[in-house]
Amino acid sequence: MASSVNSNGQVHPFANISDITLESTNHLKTLYANDASPTKVNLMVGVYRTPEGKPYLFPSVQAAKQRIFADNSWNFEYPSLQIGSKSFRQEGIRGIFGEGWDDRVIATQTNGASGAVHWAGVFLKEHYGPWKDRPDTEKKIYIPEQTWINHHHTFHHLHITTSTLPYLSTTTTPGIAPLDFSAFHTAISNLPPQSVILLQPIAHNPTGLVPTASQWTTLLRTIKKLGHFIIWDVAYPGFSSGNIFDDLAVVREYAEAEVPMVVCWTYGKCMGVYSERVGLLLIPMPAGASKEMRVRIEKQVKGIVRAETGALGGFGGRLVETVLADAGLKKQWEGELRTVAGELVRRREKLGASLERLGAKGDWKGLVEGRGFFALLNLTEVQVAMLREKWSVYVLESGRLSIAGLNDGNVEYVARAIHDVLENTRT
Amino acid sequence: MASSVNSNGQVHPFANISDITLESTNHLKTLYANDASPTKVNLMVGVYRTPEGKPYLFPSVQAAKQRIFADNSWNFEYPSLQIGSKSFRQEGIRGIFGEGWDDRVIATQTNGASGAVHWAGVFLKEHYGPWKDRPDTEKKIYIPEQTWINHHHTFHHLHITTSTLPYLSTTTTPGIAPLDFSAFHTAISNLPPQSVILLQPIAHNPTGLVPTASQWTTLLRTIKKLGHFIIWDVAYPGFSSGNIFDDLAVVREYAEAEVPMVVCWTYGKCMGVYSERVGLLLIPMPAGASKEMRVRIEKQVKGIVRAETGALGGFGGRLVETVLADAGLKKQWEGELRTVAGELVRRREKLGASLERLGAKGDWKGLVEGRGFFALLNLTEVQVAMLREKWSVYVLESGRLSIAGLNDGNVEYVARAIHDVLENTRT
Repeated sequence: MASSVNSNGQVHPFANISDITLESTNHLKTLYANDASPTKVNLMVGVYRTPEGKPYLFPSVQAAKQRIFADNSWNFEYPSLQIGSKSFRQEGIRGIFGEGWDDRVIATQTNGASGAVHWAGVFLKEHYGPWKDRPDTEKKIYIPEQTWINHHHTFHHLHITTSTLPYLSTTTTPGIAPLDFSAFHTAISNLPPQSVILLQPIAHNPTGLVPTASQWTTLLRTIKKLGHFIIWDVAYPGFSSGNIFDDLAVVREYAEAEVPMVVCWTYGKCMGVYSERVGLLLIPMPAGASKEMRVRIEKQVKGIVRAETGALGGFGGRLVETVLADAGLKKQWEGELRTVAGELVRRREKLGASLERLGAKGDWKGLVEGRGFFALLNLTEVQVAMLREKWSVYVLESGRLSIAGLNDGNVEYVARAIHDVLENTRT
Repeated sequence: MASSVNSNGQVHPFANISDITLESTNHLKTLYANDASPTKVNLMVGVYRTPEGKPYLFPSVQAAKQRIFADNSWNFEYPSLQIGSKSFRQEGIRGIFGEGWDDRVIATQTNGASGAVHWAGVFLKEHYGPWKDRPDTEKKIYIPEQTWINHHHTFHHLHITTSTLPYLSTTTTPGIAPLDFSAFHTAISNLPPQSVILLQPIAHNPTGLVPTASQWTTLLRTIKKLGHFIIWDVAYPGFSSGNIFDDLAVVREYAEAEVPMVVCWTYGKCMGVYSERVGLLLIPMPAGASKEMRVRIEKQVKGIVRAETGALGGFGGRLVETVLADAGLKKQWEGELRTVAGELVRRREKLGASLERLGAKGDWKGLVEGRGFFALLNLTEVQVAMLREKWSVYVLESGRLSIAGLNDGNVEYVARAIHDVLENTRT
């Protein structure tokens, strides 16, 4: 380490900093960028693109943007509330819980859903009752085996331990592995009481698959009996039914049953404002919670915001609020979201139909049943590499394919590529 | 706690959440809002207002805003880099260090200076070599006794211990207490080697007072000898000389002497984009640091960003970058910042001259010598309350007065109020 010794002979205090492995798609992005094939397809990206493959801007959000820019009173002074404006937070609460919950849900704006999940971890680590007398090493969050690429990293950063729950079937049949609800439910039944579980209620990343409504109700009974705590990670609200309120019926069902929980969600995807980092962390309270308890919780939430960011981004929050606070724009946006969600279903169906027509071997039911941006192809590493090297079709190494990146120009080609790879490899 | 027991008889896991005391000016803001006096003056706010008392928008930033808005290719897809664009970070590095440091400084965009200080704490807690084998309780940051309202809270949130260093003289003379450099220097000399110290190099909040250039050099010798680590908190770059590069000569001097450090700074104040949370965390490396070590550090920084926010706000970063990347706009902005900084000096002088003319008792030298947004009035609590109750002049309970909130219409009135309070109380 001679090179990090200064002129006083002191070793630099970061010289022995540990290395870290970050899940990264940079090498794939580079391969894609350097791929000369005129038919190359990028199915790695987690953003919705138009049927022509272009960035999609919600017209309602564009209209809100115009309105903000045309407002001469718009300035960049600090917001009056560091946790986001009251109206913004209320719209978020009502968007999930409906009327009557304004005073029962503690809410703060966040840096997208990522920021909300981080603060959920911070909040639980400090304040989750059953963890109080345990060392950090015994604070554990259970996460489905297939999950968002960043979940384990986010909690490990806080020195929270993570453990996985079985989720998809371990079948080797090519295609889309189905949810193994029985294994999932059994694992949750066998957790110690008051365990903390992270669940995605809809449009599960990366599988697109979640339990049915009646399976959620079965889980609810077990969760309630054991007193488990749920972190709901809702990155894709509205991308199942096309309507956020309908999509989150399961969250309401659990909240009404007084399952202790936090809800992490974002407007990033459902308004197409990925870059602006506009999310919410919501903490619903039981009906009987005292005002004094709610005040204590809100103060602790404010304490986190002040310690970590000072305040949340103005423009992004204002953009979302401008859409939500205007009945006309809000209605327009709801229609646009419905169209986008419907378009994703159409792409799933189209890919499924093409694979069927080609006679692609395997079980593809889950492709059409899935919802949201992603499907997880049950392919071997060799097959994923072959998709890329022979066909220039780029999915993540896990086999995650972005439905949101399919379009009319590439879907048939992608089906042919998948079919070919399945035919021409030994599994 | 009966009210937080659910229908299963389970106590809500947040029922016993601890209470927290947040430093808050809400009660003062409410008093101000309800104060019927036509001559009431708000000197609590930490934002620069025009000589007419209105929100100030930098014309260069407004021009950048228009340019962004007029750009049809502007969309809200994820940025290509989660730590901020390369150009944005490079401009930040050059803005402080000048040319030749691009590859020696690891940088990430942050949520303002607050977010940068938070991440400095996170980074040190995990990676500061001399802390490695110590329990969290022995990780300690030393901060001047007078400091930004949120500093202790930010580090305590991370379970880092804080301790104070003497800063201002403990004189009871009314007016502005001077810096007690000798006590400050002695305290730093007596710290254990490799202590972590937070310093504000210019426009110190809340006092406006910092060591002179030669005092900084004296401190440097001591700091270097003892191997202390410096967290530079630069919330008000440019507000001393009017030029950011000149203001931060002391930071460069220390970096060139290879004092280990991180620099936390923000465009919030110097571009008037408070709400957009656009800051930087910079980690300069010694000249001899290996590329491999720099890569390890950058990866750990990326790991923090991904775990806590996913990415940084798009619009705010773009706004700043648009100004900095355009030679014309940048030059215009530099002129505007010089004007604003000069205007603050003019307000200090005007308040000082009025107090002198009135014969206000006490030592007011530091008022005019101070720089940046704030001055700290050496008043008793009773006198601060009297300012508010008799004169409707609102400063923080600590006596912190916002120079940025003074204007041509209120400065004489404020001087008369201060003079009266000093005449009509027993201290």
